[in-house]
Amino acid sequence: MLESKITQLTVRDVRFPTSLEQHGSDAMHTDPDYSVAYVVLETDSDAALKGYGLTFTVGRGTEIVVCAVKALSTLVVGKTLKEIISDFRGFYRLLSSDGQMRWVGPEKGVIQLATAAILNAVWDLWARVEGKVRNKPLKTNTSDPAKLISCIDFRYITDALTEQEALDILVKAKKGQKSREEQMLKEGYPAYTTSCAWLGYTDQQLTQLCSEALAQGWTKFKVKVGADLQDDIRRCSLIRKLIGPNNTLMIDANQRWDVNEAITWVTKLAEFHPLWIEEPTCPDDVLGHASISKALAPLGIGVATGDITHQLDCYWTTC
Amino acid sequence: MLESKITQLTVRDVRFPTSLEQHGSDAMHTDPDYSVAYVVLETDSDAALKGYGLTFTVGRGTEIVVCAVKALSTLVVGKTLKEIISDFRGFYRLLSSDGQMRWVGPEKGVIQLATAAILNAVWDLWARVEGKVRNKPLKTNTSDPAKLISCIDFRYITDALTEQEALDILVKAKKGQKSREEQMLKEGYPAYTTSCAWLGYTDQQLTQLCSEALAQGWTKFKVKVGADLQDDIRRCSLIRKLIGPNNTLMIDANQRWDVNEAITWVTKLAEFHPLWIEEPTCPDDVLGHASISKALAPLGIGVATGDITHQLDCYWTTC
Repeated sequence: MLESKITQLTVRDVRFPTSLEQHGSDAMHTDPDYSVAYVVLETDSDAALKGYGLTFTVGRGTEIVVCAVKALSTLVVGKTLKEIISDFRGFYRLLSSDGQMRWVGPEKGVIQLATAAILNAVWDLWARVEGKVRNKPLKTNTSDPAKLISCIDFRYITDALTEQEALDILVKAKKGQKSREEQMLKEGYPAYTTSCAWLGYTDQQLTQLCSEALAQGWTKFKVKVGADLQDDIRRCSLIRKLIGPNNTLMIDANQRWDVNEAITWVTKLAEFHPLWIEEPTCPDDVLGHASISKALAPLGIGVATGDITHQLDCYWTTC
Repeated sequence: MLESKITQLTVRDVRFPTSLEQHGSDAMHTDPDYSVAYVVLETDSDAALKGYGLTFTVGRGTEIVVCAVKALSTLVVGKTLKEIISDFRGFYRLLSSDGQMRWVGPEKGVIQLATAAILNAVWDLWARVEGKVRNKPLKTNTSDPAKLISCIDFRYITDALTEQEALDILVKAKKGQKSREEQMLKEGYPAYTTSCAWLGYTDQQLTQLCSEALAQGWTKFKVKVGADLQDDIRRCSLIRKLIGPNNTLMIDANQRWDVNEAITWVTKLAEFHPLWIEEPTCPDDVLGHASISKALAPLGIGVATGDITHQLDCYWTTC
């Protein structure tokens, strides 16, 4: 079934009116409608065999990503799954380095989001084929939210390695394996929740959602900040009181500040002991992130960049 | 007329088949069809008063920029010209920071190209109004290619300054004014030509176009490189022979290499004494450009970044 040829790519603009109740709101995205450009790949081998992929957006502008997916689709339709997965890097390069389309990127913004939706659909299609052929699902999940395990099935990675590469990783990882296994079985994979403290939520909502999350076993909480300092102080104080001194608080400004503003603002929130400030400034300002990180280190506050890679040259400032 | 309200924005996808004869070809854009997303603004004051703006593209993908211009148009239509120009920074922020659309940027790629086309059209509209009102054109031109002067009329800049700011600039610029004026009148504003040596041109075309440009008075020549080292050596050698040791040669790889490849490749072209290598690597890799610059400095070769600002956090490594 790896010989299946991709015969059609369709893409839909799917929007959810999350802004109505301020779900997902932050200092930069004050009225987000969480949305997706949703790609479906069809093949010539089996009408039921399809690959599904999406890229996340926050409402207006999704139609531009849809337009970009359509533009890229000519590079996908007609290929066999085997052709793609036998040279996945080449396939990525094909999408990102088209001699004309790369001009409107390269490898960033709309065209990168569109590429992501297509690549996700290809991964999904591959996993469905593998699932039928040798029971290798794309993801492994548990339904317990406090012990969330959601990751790409390890065999997609290990199968791509040579025996020696796989062996080296295993030998290296042997150290500490037992204690990690024990910790994982006892505590679950570490995860945090953002869903209690979107910027547009009232203090009442925040209190209720945070209490519910605590009862469910969550120990790490992220709060959106950056629109109004007094609001941030009040909200961080409230959350810290609710979760107590031993649970973890993180804050996220979603790119709102310039470098100096970030340092000043976060310094005023230091008393609530956030583990990190996420996306304090322009996502492209690598050196700016380094300056903020350096300034906040004495306060014990780290800097995290966003979970979005809109461009090739992504970076990660450890927290 | 500054009170004119913008009543309509139309945008067209205009393409020119330049790839047929390899005009504009380089190491990354091997078959470019030089194209534009072309914006026209109409107002309620005078049917003949329109603002024209464009953003450059190289063919496929222009339709994505057109789609993005349409998405942004709701932020433009209904505004008066006065509202916009009295807070041009605010207007830029409005286009680049829409709470939903910024997700597909921010300030990079397709959405930034679309924003540029709109801003250009607003500048043009403003200049046409000013031209009618007080004879202040947008640009000043001469038609002599060897003495090309093409710049935004200085009054758009000086009018935006306070008297003290303008005075400070004038006092600072007084030093050397006479010699600069004499040089400008004698030699014209320095310009170079790229049109002789697109990557897809034959040696015969290259020889002919370069000879013609020399006869027209050009003294600075840019050559596209980066696809094949032996071709580059042959072409750079040919051009250097044609233009002689005293004219200037620049080379441009259009983002083709990684950092080490750039250093090795350009070192092999050093014997032709290029003034700079333009876009040696990924445009987002600021530190990579710095490494290349440092490595090539002992050879007397500078590094130039591209003439495209696809994102806010642009940089310029001096050559």
